[in-house]
Order: sequence, then structure tokens, then C-alpha cells
Amino acid sequence: MMTHLELLEQLRQITGAPNVLTEGDLTAWELDWRKRERGRALAVVRPASTEELAAVVKACAAARVSMVPQGGNTGMVVGSTPDASGTQVVLSLTRMNKVRALDAGNLTITVDAGCVLQNLQEACEEAGFLFPLSLASEGSCTIGGNLGTNAGGTQVVRYGNTRELCLGLEVVTSRGEIWNGLTGLRKDNTGYDLRHLFIGSEGTLGVITAATMKLYPMPVSQLTAFAAVPSLDAAVQLLSLAHRYLSSGLTGFEVMGQFALSLVAKHYPQQRVPFWQESPWCVVLENSDNESEAHARECFERLLEAAMEEGCVTDAVVAESMAQAKALWHIRESIPLAQAEEGLNIKHDISISVSRIPEFVQETNALLLQHFPGARLVIYGHLGDGNLHYNVQAPVDDDQARFLLDEEAPMNSLVYEVVDRYNGSISAEHGIGSLKAEKLEHHKSPVALGLMRSIKQALDPLNLMNPGRVIRDN
Amino acid sequence: MMTHLELLEQLRQITGAPNVLTEGDLTAWELDWRKRERGRALAVVRPASTEELAAVVKACAAARVSMVPQGGNTGMVVGSTPDASGTQVVLSLTRMNKVRALDAGNLTITVDAGCVLQNLQEACEEAGFLFPLSLASEGSCTIGGNLGTNAGGTQVVRYGNTRELCLGLEVVTSRGEIWNGLTGLRKDNTGYDLRHLFIGSEGTLGVITAATMKLYPMPVSQLTAFAAVPSLDAAVQLLSLAHRYLSSGLTGFEVMGQFALSLVAKHYPQQRVPFWQESPWCVVLENSDNESEAHARECFERLLEAAMEEGCVTDAVVAESMAQAKALWHIRESIPLAQAEEGLNIKHDISISVSRIPEFVQETNALLLQHFPGARLVIYGHLGDGNLHYNVQAPVDDDQARFLLDEEAPMNSLVYEVVDRYNGSISAEHGIGSLKAEKLEHHKSPVALGLMRSIKQALDPLNLMNPGRVIRDN
Repeated sequence: MMTHLELLEQLRQITGAPNVLTEGDLTAWELDWRKRERGRALAVVRPASTEELAAVVKACAAARVSMVPQGGNTGMVVGSTPDASGTQVVLSLTRMNKVRALDAGNLTITVDAGCVLQNLQEACEEAGFLFPLSLASEGSCTIGGNLGTNAGGTQVVRYGNTRELCLGLEVVTSRGEIWNGLTGLRKDNTGYDLRHLFIGSEGTLGVITAATMKLYPMPVSQLTAFAAVPSLDAAVQLLSLAHRYLSSGLTGFEVMGQFALSLVAKHYPQQRVPFWQESPWCVVLENSDNESEAHARECFERLLEAAMEEGCVTDAVVAESMAQAKALWHIRESIPLAQAEEGLNIKHDISISVSRIPEFVQETNALLLQHFPGARLVIYGHLGDGNLHYNVQAPVDDDQARFLLDEEAPMNSLVYEVVDRYNGSISAEHGIGSLKAEKLEHHKSPVALGLMRSIKQALDPLNLMNPGRVIRDN
Repeated sequence: MMTHLELLEQLRQITGAPNVLTEGDLTAWELDWRKRERGRALAVVRPASTEELAAVVKACAAARVSMVPQGGNTGMVVGSTPDASGTQVVLSLTRMNKVRALDAGNLTITVDAGCVLQNLQEACEEAGFLFPLSLASEGSCTIGGNLGTNAGGTQVVRYGNTRELCLGLEVVTSRGEIWNGLTGLRKDNTGYDLRHLFIGSEGTLGVITAATMKLYPMPVSQLTAFAAVPSLDAAVQLLSLAHRYLSSGLTGFEVMGQFALSLVAKHYPQQRVPFWQESPWCVVLENSDNESEAHARECFERLLEAAMEEGCVTDAVVAESMAQAKALWHIRESIPLAQAEEGLNIKHDISISVSRIPEFVQETNALLLQHFPGARLVIYGHLGDGNLHYNVQAPVDDDQARFLLDEEAPMNSLVYEVVDRYNGSISAEHGIGSLKAEKLEHHKSPVALGLMRSIKQALDPLNLMNPGRVIRDN
């Protein structure tokens, strides 16, 4: 069996010594995004091409050294950083960041996995197309990471998750083989869908090295509205109307609870937050139009009139300019930051059938306040997708650190238990990583877990690809 | 080991004797849709519920008897009929045909796999929603079969394949366990995507017993246009314009070659086929609108004006009534029937990047006519998805039977060889079944085949689920 030193020497020969990092400050690769866990890597390897990466995987596999694929390292569930053993190799894909080809006639773009999402968005925009995936970390996350975790974001209601935007993949298997599935085909029924198996597998089955993604014509106009709604039921009713009146023009539908908005108003007084004092819930809606701004406005006004008649909207503003639209979205985006300003908090990234969300929130709120008196609920998220960020802030004047330490586990259990009863998901868009791997075993059906274990065993028999993440070996 | 007689007795106890068919005329289950192969079943079992089906699978597995899941038996590639051995059990799902639940607020419907597609469409329509999957066999095919084969159809350009319309599955595994994944969630990142693995696996990994499918608001208006285009390049250019002008209003884009249309005109003289005499290609476009017919017409006219200015449309008609729209679509749908009237023919269901289709057709036509002088090319299909039905009619006065017998294999090889060079698919929407299982081994990458074999081995270790279909054991 090869020693670690021999392996490192091999890796240096494959990628060049400067691209095998073993000393100095490796925080950027070893510390997870939310700073919850600090690991230690045997080495951080930065291959320049798929062929180099394949050779690296072969070498690590031969040495029985496990690997942790990493893009922008912006994940929320500790899935892309090494464990504390100092025996894992981080495969950093950030040097593989080229746009390989843009096919306007086929409405596709093919990119290296290490391409930063924002660069991908800009390359498409320059060619006159929209790449709709958009999320908070787009300035640093990579498309490979987005695919590995099947990232969601704010446009899912129209365009789907990252999964739905992908037409083909290039993958390095756990044996260091290269699978080229970069076809750009919209129809291909030649066997099992390997693409969807690797997407969302968080690097536990292989390493995504490139992808062919869908493009859309750039909308002529994007309008944003901010609406006050009297209840969550009303918000769901408004969503149905929006689907009917805007059809696929509806590209954003975010709900925000009163306390969540109060935190933005409190910590960012320069932001003008409409309606929050009078209304228990507010909604940000976005309408993308392929005709004209006038037409977009017309559709929006028709929707809001109908909504007011039906009583599911009490007041609303439609942005008059891009600046105003940005400002309205900025309120929504400021909620997590305002939460951090307020103090530590316990996060839940859950999804439920849209139609059952009001019932779910009412029941869970009551249970939480019963068991954790004074807990302050920060509820907001992508209602259009049934995805809530159901977060909990420590009671006022409570010891923040103690709150997180003592209450996080029992509070997670309480929330996830209700999620189970509602047939929901304990991780709607953030994935499992190592943070939720143990939880998954309690909340996923034994049959599903059995199928997942069989697949992991089949595609990574030596358990060298991001071991312990998503599905644990037992 | 259990004898076949003992197994049949067990199956009778599970489903009741009348639902275990072993005698009489079993043609409906034993003969494939295109009447290419007649198999012989040990029995046709018709369970009434998922639990009964699971018990049947357990019993067959215990007896090491292989199973062939079957819905409406309308497949094109001999994937749902038993082999000639008389030792396989056909699992017919047609008695499991209920709509379980329709959730208007969540825009989802949950149905048994045996539900006939048309009944599913009608159940949605009655509730005011659109279920967009639509194909020629919708009166007899089942949603379970559509999922098992990832069926395509005429609305894929807007709504995607059956895969993209599915949010959750219930599946009976090869061990007879029941996996309930009927969540109806639009976001769920809790592990590997088992749903997409079973979809399109043609019953070789397990049996789909129910599904939760997406619904859409019913469009207010659907308009159809029929346009003459001077070339395939022009058709591709028109498609780009249609994406830009209609955005997701574009719900159909079908291309038809002159000879294909001439066959409709010849064999169905009562159908008025516009433009075919003057134009080498014609296109059927559909625009679905959520506002009004007036608005739909306005958008369509804007598109067609622009197209004529750019010279990619020479003439066009827009249907003035539903009857006219149906008539225009009927021309497209009559092509395969007219082909059959004309005589035997060799079919190819291929896909290529949309942008490369003109080049592909030009190159392949030339090669074909060089090697098969007099062959008559019937080219039509879903250009919006890059999917062509590239079919070949025997030369006039040639012996039809001889043509099919002698020329099919070499002609397939020639076409598929070009498809490979264009990085396309040899089965865009019909699947592999047993008809193309051997071909697949020549045209799929060894790495992909290896991954598929590992997955098959992991989920069906005894190779009892539709063996020999899709991926053969070797």
C-alpha cells in the first residue's frame, strides 16, 4: 500500500507541486461556510483539467485515501470540507473554470464545474440569454457545487432547481474513469438517467467536472411587487392567482413573516420596509415578461386587483424602476443578515406541500412556543416552492450560546417530527452533508435508505468519495 | 425451490384466481404494440393494489421467476411483453387505475400507475387544470408506462418529458418492498434522487405503482399555426424566434418534410395539406396563452411578421377555430398512418442538438441515398426538442418485405453511426426495450454502460425485473 508521502509525490507530478497544498493557511478549504466545523486535510489538490482530476482520483483510490470534492465551499451543511483526521484529500475544482461552449441555437451552455455561478450568469447575459439560477452566494459558489447539492434559490417557482436546468454532465467516477454525458439533448431515452443520480449526491458517488446547462431568452422586462397579505392562507391563495394570471411569467414568490421583517427594519433602518407594521405577512412577487414593461405592468395590475377583490392582498406596491425592484428584493435578502445581527439562531430548511403550509406553521408555532417559551420565530422563504426557512431566534435576554447549545437538538427534533407528519422534507434546498447525515437516518424511509446504500456501494465500493456525507456506512 | 405450479397457486391466493391468467387468448399482453414479437407468459397477473403487487413480486422472487411490468402495452421497442420462454410473469397494472388525490393548492395529482393517460388528462381538466403530457397512444397507454419509458410527445418543448412532470413515485422494489416517495414536494434534497433513477428504467429496477404529477393552470387560449419554411435552417431560425417572441407560450413546434406531407395528401385526400407542393418543409406551431385569444393571436402575428421579414417563413396560416387547429394538428399526426398506408418502413427515433439538425439531415440523407438508391425519406418530428422521426420508405416498386428484412440492420447502423458523430441519441423518446438493447452496447460509452450495470446489479441482484431489457447481463 502506498504511503501518504508517496501519494503526495504522485499528486505533485500530476498537477504540479504548486497545486498540491499541504502547508500554510488552508482555512479557505478546511473551514465550512457557516464556520461550524474546521477540518484538516492531508492535501488540497487543484487540478487544471478533467484528465488531471481523473489521474488524481485514480492515485488516491490506489492509496485508499478518501476524497472531498469542493467548489466554492459555500455549502450550508458541512459537505465540502475534510474531516479532522488529516487523512483526506480535498479536490478543489476552482482552477477548472472555463466556459467551454455556448450554443445559441440549442439554447445551451457547456462549462467546467469550477466556473463561478456569477461568471456563468454574465457569460450568458453577454450572449443575450438568461441563466436563471440565482442565490445569495452566487459570487463565490461554483456550478459544480450547485449541481452536487442541487441548489435552489429564488427562481425555482419558474425554472426549477439546478437539477431541472441541467441537460448533461461530465463526471469522474470513483475509479477515476471519465464519463462524458455532455450531449445537450432535450430528449434521450438510452438507459438509466445517470445525470440525475450524480446531481444532488454531494460528491459521494463521483466528481462532476463539467455540465451542459439550459439557457432562456432574456426577458424584456422584470417587475417586482411587494404585497401585504392578511394570513399565510391568503399568501397561498395569492400564489394560486399568480400562477393563473402570470403563468410562467411568475419568476419569484417569497413570503416573509412580520418578525422577520421587523428585524430588517430594526437592524437596517435605512431600508424602507413597507407594510410590516400593519401586516402579519408580506410577499415579494416577480413577473418576467417577454413582450414589454407595459404588458408586464398590465398583467401585474390585473393580478393585484383580483387579489384585492378576493381579499388575499390588503395593500401592494409595484416597483417603478430597477432601483426600486432591487430595494424590494434587498429586503428579502437582508433577513438572514438581520437575523445574524440579532444574535445566534436555529435554522430549518424545510419543505411541505404548498397547500398545507399554513396548517403546518400554525401547528409547529404552537408546539414550539409551548416547549420553548419566548422563542422568536423568523419565518420566511420560497413559498412558491413550498420551501420555508423556519428559523428560531433565542428569547430576548436569553444567553445566546447556551440557547444554541442546549436547544438546537431538541428543537430540530420537534420541527422535523412535524415535518414527517406532513410528509415534508427536512432539507429542501441545502442538502445533507455531514450536518444532517445522522438526522436523515431517522427521517427517511428505511426502504429509501436501503436503496441509497445499495447505490453508494455500487458506485463507490471503497467508500472513498466524500465518506460519511449524505449516507453513512453501517 | 418452488415449482411454477406452486407459484401460480400462491399468486392466485394473493390476487384471486380470476386475476392470474394462464389460459385462453393472451395476445393483448403477449404481443408487442408494433406486432414485431409474440412472447409467451407463464401467467399474466393483475393485482388490485400496491400491497398485492408487492406480495406478487415477493412470491416471484422467492421462486426465482422473472417479471415483466406492463401498463397499456403500447411501447415501441418490445419492452413490456414476455419473452418466448413461457417462464416469465407479466405484471399487468391496469386494475390499479384510480386517481388517489388532486391537490389544487399544490398543483399536483397523485394517481395509480395503471391509470390511462387520457383519463388522467380528463380528471385534471374537470378540476380546471392542464396535465400537459400528450401522445398518440394516450387512449390506451398508462401513466406508469409513460414514467417507465419517460415518454415524450408533442408538448415537450414547453413542459418537458414525463420525467419533468413527476414530483414523486411509489415503487415496489425487486425484493417486494414498497418505497413511498409520493411527497408532492418541489424541493427535496435529502439524498439520491431515486425518482429519476426509476423513471425511464423500463421496469428493470422495480415497478412504479403510483406517481405524483405536476399540474398547470388551463391556458385561456391555444392557437395553432402552419408555416411553410424554405429550409431546415430556416425552421431552426423560426424556432429561435418563437422562443424569443412566445417564450413559454410556445407549446408545440413540429417539422414535416415535403415527402412526409405528400404521403398524407396522397392517402388522405380529404385532408387539406397547405403549402406542401411549394415548400420543402413545413412547421406546426402552437401558442398557449393565459390571457386571451386576442393576445395569443397578437403574439403569433408579431412572430410570423418577424419570421417573414427574416425570410425564414414564406407563407403561414393561423387557425381561426378549434376545428381548424385540430385539422392542422391532424395533418402532423397522420404522417405515421400515411406511412403505413404507403407500405413497410424503417423507423429511427433520434435526437441531436437542435442547432446541428440541418447539417445532420443533409449529411445523412446523402449517405443513405448513396448506399440505398431510391430509398424515400420520411422526415418529421419534434424539432423543438431536437427529436426527429427519421424514417425510410422502401423504393417505389421494391419488394417491401425484402426491403425491411435486408436493409433494416445496415440502414440502422448507417444512421446511428452518423448520430454518434453528432453526439446524439439513438432513442430520443421510445426507449431501449429489447429491440435496441444490443444496439445500445455499441452506441453508449463503456463508462456509462459500466455504471448502468453496477446500478442494475445493486437494485436487482437476481436479474428478475424485465431481464434483457435496456441493459443485458454479460
